[in-house]
Amino acid sequence: MTRDEATAAIVSSRLAKGFTWQQLADAIGRPLVWTTAALLGQHPLPPDSARQIAELLDLPAEAVPVLAAVPYRGGLPTAVPTDPTIYRLYEALQVYGPALKELIHEQFGDGIMSAINFKLDIGRATHDGAEHVVITFDGKFLPYNWPSD
Amino acid sequence: MTRDEATAAIVSSRLAKGFTWQQLADAIGRPLVWTTAALLGQHPLPPDSARQIAELLDLPAEAVPVLAAVPYRGGLPTAVPTDPTIYRLYEALQVYGPALKELIHEQFGDGIMSAINFKLDIGRATHDGAEHVVITFDGKFLPYNWPSD
Amino acid sequence: MTRDEATAAIVSSRLAKGFTWQQLADAIGRPLVWTTAALLGQHPLPPDSARQIAELLDLPAEAVPVLAAVPYRGGLPTAVPTDPTIYRLYEALQVYGPALKELIHEQFGDGIMSAINFKLDIGRATHDGAEHVVITFDGKFLPYNWPSD
Amino acid sequence: MTRDEATAAIVSSRLAKGFTWQQLADAIGRPLVWTTAALLGQHPLPPDSARQIAELLDLPAEAVPVLAAVPYRGGLPTAVPTDPTIYRLYEALQVYGPALKELIHEQFGDGIMSAINFKLDIGRATHDGAEHVVITFDGKFLPYNWPSD
Amino acid sequence: MTRDEATAAIVSSRLAKGFTWQQLADAIGRPLVWTTAALLGQHPLPPDSARQIAELLDLPAEAVPVLAAVPYRGGLPTAVPTDPTIYRLYEALQVYGPALKELIHEQFGDGIMSAINFKLDIGRATHDGAEHVVITFDGKFLPYNWPSD
Amino acid sequence: MTRDEATAAIVSSRLAKGFTWQQLADAIGRPLVWTTAALLGQHPLPPDSARQIAELLDLPAEAVPVLAAVPYRGGLPTAVPTDPTIYRLYEALQVYGPALKELIHEQFGDGIMSAINFKLDIGRATHDGAEHVVITFDGKFLPYNWPSD
Amino acid sequence: MTRDEATAAIVSSRLAKGFTWQQLADAIGRPLVWTTAALLGQHPLPPDSARQIAELLDLPAEAVPVLAAVPYRGGLPTAVPTDPTIYRLYEALQVYGPALKELIHEQFGDGIMSAINFKLDIGRATHDGAEHVVITFDGKFLPYNWPSD
Amino acid sequence: MTRDEATAAIVSSRLAKGFTWQQLADAIGRPLVWTTAALLGQHPLPPDSARQIAELLDLPAEAVPVLAAVPYRGGLPTAVPTDPTIYRLYEALQVYGPALKELIHEQFGDGIMSAINFKLDIGRATHDGAEHVVITFDGKFLPYNWPSD
Amino acid sequence: MTRDEATAAIVSSRLAKGFTWQQLADAIGRPLVWTTAALLGQHPLPPDSARQIAELLDLPAEAVPVLAAVPYRGGLPTAVPTDPTIYRLYEALQVYGPALKELIHEQFGDGIMSAINFKLDIGRATHDGAEHVVITFDGKFLPYNWPSD
Amino acid sequence: MTRDEATAAIVSSRLAKGFTWQQLADAIGRPLVWTTAALLGQHPLPPDSARQIAELLDLPAEAVPVLAAVPYRGGLPTAVPTDPTIYRLYEALQVYGPALKELIHEQFGDGIMSAINFKLDIGRATHDGAEHVVITFDGKFLPYNWPSD
Repeated sequence: MTRDEATAAIVSSRLAKGFTWQQLADAIGRPLVWTTAALLGQHPLPPDSARQIAELLDLPAEAVPVLAAVPYRGGLPTAVPTDPTIYRLYEALQVYGPALKELIHEQFGDGIMSAINFKLDIGRATHDGAEHVVITFDGKFLPYNWPSD
Repeated sequence: MTRDEATAAIVSSRLAKGFTWQQLADAIGRPLVWTTAALLGQHPLPPDSARQIAELLDLPAEAVPVLAAVPYRGGLPTAVPTDPTIYRLYEALQVYGPALKELIHEQFGDGIMSAINFKLDIGRATHDGAEHVVITFDGKFLPYNWPSD
Repeated sequence: MTRDEATAAIVSSRLAKGFTWQQLADAIGRPLVWTTAALLGQHPLPPDSARQIAELLDLPAEAVPVLAAVPYRGGLPTAVPTDPTIYRLYEALQVYGPALKELIHEQFGDGIMSAINFKLDIGRATHDGAEHVVITFDGKFLPYNWPSD
Repeated sequence: MTRDEATAAIVSSRLAKGFTWQQLADAIGRPLVWTTAALLGQHPLPPDSARQIAELLDLPAEAVPVLAAVPYRGGLPTAVPTDPTIYRLYEALQVYGPALKELIHEQFGDGIMSAINFKLDIGRATHDGAEHVVITFDGKFLPYNWPSD
Repeated sequence: MTRDEATAAIVSSRLAKGFTWQQLADAIGRPLVWTTAALLGQHPLPPDSARQIAELLDLPAEAVPVLAAVPYRGGLPTAVPTDPTIYRLYEALQVYGPALKELIHEQFGDGIMSAINFKLDIGRATHDGAEHVVITFDGKFLPYNWPSD
Repeated sequence: MTRDEATAAIVSSRLAKGFTWQQLADAIGRPLVWTTAALLGQHPLPPDSARQIAELLDLPAEAVPVLAAVPYRGGLPTAVPTDPTIYRLYEALQVYGPALKELIHEQFGDGIMSAINFKLDIGRATHDGAEHVVITFDGKFLPYNWPSD
Repeated sequence: MTRDEATAAIVSSRLAKGFTWQQLADAIGRPLVWTTAALLGQHPLPPDSARQIAELLDLPAEAVPVLAAVPYRGGLPTAVPTDPTIYRLYEALQVYGPALKELIHEQFGDGIMSAINFKLDIGRATHDGAEHVVITFDGKFLPYNWPSD
Repeated sequence: MTRDEATAAIVSSRLAKGFTWQQLADAIGRPLVWTTAALLGQHPLPPDSARQIAELLDLPAEAVPVLAAVPYRGGLPTAVPTDPTIYRLYEALQVYGPALKELIHEQFGDGIMSAINFKLDIGRATHDGAEHVVITFDGKFLPYNWPSD
Repeated sequence: MTRDEATAAIVSSRLAKGFTWQQLADAIGRPLVWTTAALLGQHPLPPDSARQIAELLDLPAEAVPVLAAVPYRGGLPTAVPTDPTIYRLYEALQVYGPALKELIHEQFGDGIMSAINFKLDIGRATHDGAEHVVITFDGKFLPYNWPSD
Repeated sequence: MTRDEATAAIVSSRLAKGFTWQQLADAIGRPLVWTTAALLGQHPLPPDSARQIAELLDLPAEAVPVLAAVPYRGGLPTAVPTDPTIYRLYEALQVYGPALKELIHEQFGDGIMSAINFKLDIGRATHDGAEHVVITFDGKFLPYNWPSD
């Protein structure tokens, strides 16, 4: 069983059994966005969580070590996403990416926002009476550093 | 003068004169991220702001209507960004994009986070004593809707 | 069962049973273009409609929750379509896309025509005695707006 | 002078002089969308119209035969457009292209909507109190036909 | 059964049974190039012809409606063909495409050679004692026309 | 002066002076399609013809050896052409390329139609009262041959 | 059975049975490079040779007509090869391709080295005591020729 | 002056002055293919040779250190060459690349033909009375070797 | 069994049985990085090692000659890697590749670092109290050399 | 002046004046690889160093703030490098990238080698009497970490 097969099994079993992502995250006691990403093949699950998920979703036993292994990450089927929900995030990158780069440098110095020591949150706000999706990227600032010996 | 030429003139004049992006945003009284994106060629400037910027940065008069026109948006020179600071945002999309899609649908229904009725903020947080860059995407939820006549 | 497999099953079962798209749209009481797109994998079906379709087309029960889930959208196998019927729409975009952009901005302001709060219609006209295909894109105008807090 | 240089001159002179596309279309007495596309380099102008435009926009005399020649068409700088206003049209093609193909075949037979014997219109509608952009593609139906000798 | 599967079945059954394309074209009484393209998945077959082909090539009954449906056209696995026999046609396009464009415009006006109201023929000629392949593209001239209402 | 610069000079000088391609072909006594392709940068001109063309079009003397040198061939700015007039030829290749390959092999054996020992003609026909563009590819058949020593 | 399946069967059966390519070439009495290319799916085998190969490698009978048919040629899975042994040939093309073009034209005139009337040989040489691979491309010179009628 | 500018100057000056590549190779006493590649920007010239070439071709003095520096190699403007003379070499790679890989491994072991310790020759042969271009790749065999410490 | 299938079998069997790469390298007495690469499909295994691995991982007997054959190398599914761990190596190449080229030439002369006579090591270092990954590329310097006859 | 123009000026002035990269690194007292990368446009220079470099290389005063600004990083003109010296590093990534990923995870856990807190060194070794290039990547291990609030 490959990780892609394990992911496909999770996706269809979740729909068939009617679990929400929130219920699966609660079941293993891990943050919601992290759990969803992990179950979509982007993070290894702790072995115990892998076993719980396999049980809940009736996955075969051989899925457990596969879910617990570090996966080959990168979840988009094409370099530029075609799905409109995901595309809007890419569009924001096209329109605001260079501005964010300038401001990270102006406010923090030469470096990057880590995508490894990093968390994402999804929330909700209201502006002018309309419901807004709020997505927060929160990553450690890593200054460019050339280690001395 | 094309918009690309106007952007290049802004970029090099800003460096030569030593303005921060914050100073330019303050000068025209507009939000910081919005201003930086606009000056990098992604939004039209109100005519008055265009005149102020042209004055501050010694741009020729013909730049003013160019800066005030709606630009052809999209600021990345390649579909996948090569600059590490910008790439990390793309990487977050590769790793978390499908998870964000699932959760927008689970929490808001079938639809998207608008990138048009939308704002971005950049801020700062501390976790475990380390400085973090916090980027907030805040866009109106737009449900898929097939208008009745 | 993945959504792609469900779509393939719909496509071949429809041909084998000889249903028109119009008949399927009538069966579930939804607009014709919307239904065709949904059955080709681009929209979730309401659970009841999914059940009706599964029955009409003899799809297995497990297809129902798959059809009712929000799909990963984007229905073209290549970025530039090779099929001549679809290509003509892409060609119109190549030839008239920049003009439409200019005129949306001139007539509505800085913003976009939504593809989410949006409907498409296909009809028929006659010019100089020849039959014409008339396709209408009708999307809400969304002005660029940077929400104040 | 190449056609690309002529287009660039039109774009910047129009902004500098403050003409709307509608005014330019009125000046030469041609439809609005057609005129905008032609001035953006997608159609030849009749020689008289080319002369009028050159005069209005202060283009050099050598621009006239260039504007009157059939151009190399195709106005997008990348195969997938990055500008959000244009992208939405591409997105509609990704989501609804295959459905439109099926329905053209179901309602008209095997063939295409011509993009040559073709016009585009942009208009306005209101649904649920919201302003909508309405774009109409109107092209002759061309049935696949293998001419007998 | 998908159309791709039907095409694959035709290709291997034809080889196994030793039919020439000419024999298959004669069997259904249709032009040779048209028939070959149709059997390679590029045109719908009239239902009766589909039945005849299915019988001759021992295809399952479910192939008949698939062969009779309008296919998703475009028969090259890569945008630039790698097969030398097909590549020479692409090379001719690279070397002579712009010249043909200029001459279509000079001799017929602004418009295109239709690829829909169109036929192709393959024949033979002798020049300087050498056998030549002669391929004739014969398509209706379609002038650019913006229909008046 | 590069060949690209020489081609650009020919293109704009031809328009300014109002020559047809036919007139230029007649001036040097060479076939029409060949001459057009050569002047668009795809074939070397015999030195005398290069001189005649340079004189007719007021090109600088240094253009003559450039026009007489073998060029780097390939005249399309993108692998898939965007111009509709040229695209139709590419579309014919997508739809009929595999069929032409099969028929070249069936009628001539394993080999190719040469694009080197090759000529192209453009003509006119009438079918059902409509004017047709007829393009003839005529290339030597080259059988695959593994030379013995 | 498709040609790709036949090739895959040859590749794994050859390894399992321990034949060298030389032994297979000897078995059918054809040149070594030609045979290896043909068995990797690039040339049709004469029917008798196809039968011999099928017997030696235990291929099913239905493989014989497939091996004897003209294949769709082009054996690289990506446009730029990733395998280092094959890449070096591509690198030579990148570094020396334009030089070879200039010298073919200087020494032979305007034309090409045929890849159809063509053979390849692989041999061995010693320079400065080191073993060298020597690959010889030997193709008929084809001068550009526009046939007179 | 960049190396690309130096190459362009060499190309046009060579044509204007009427030198053959052979004459330039003789002038600096280096092999013909090597010299042509070097002058097309693929190898550094020894400083003395650079001076000789600069003198012969009237290049400015600042060209000498540029020609003597190691260039950024890779001479094709697109990954797949469009020029027919160069394309035939790429086609040979597509058709025979995998076979050459197998035979290098069968005859020499696991390794590659070096493209660094490497020479190319162009010559002439006659088969069946026809003139052939013969191109010889001659590169050191480099076996895969994992150095022990 | 193809090499890709053999690799997939190794990957999932290793996870199911809980072997580390180090244990597999120790089992066959070969360097760690080399063994991991070989088992991921990048090097042939000596036949005895192939048998040992097949036994340890319960692979079918037919895997042995497949593992012992020279593979088609190149282990990344896309030209630009999407996995963050691998991407950082590509990013280093984007940022430092041109500098490494300059310094190889300055310190060693015109040539390359071989990737064939080459080894890679992975180790550990501490700088400022933080654990660092140290990857060492060690390849023979190969000077550009044009062999004399 | 853009950063690309500044880099081009550095490259040609360095050649004209005959400085080595080592001399420039010594002049500003910074590590060799870092300095070379910075002068090739990949790192900002401290303002004082920028002034020193501008003086040594006769760059205009306006170059100083440009060199001191954080650049848009990514120094390869194509996604897959064509230059052989740089390509070998990409090839190592193709062949060993997946293995390095597995071993980083086996030896350090789930995470990456930073390319930001990172240094590169180039050195020399001898194996079996042959000179080797040794390139050391040394980056902080960053474990995947989802910060708790």
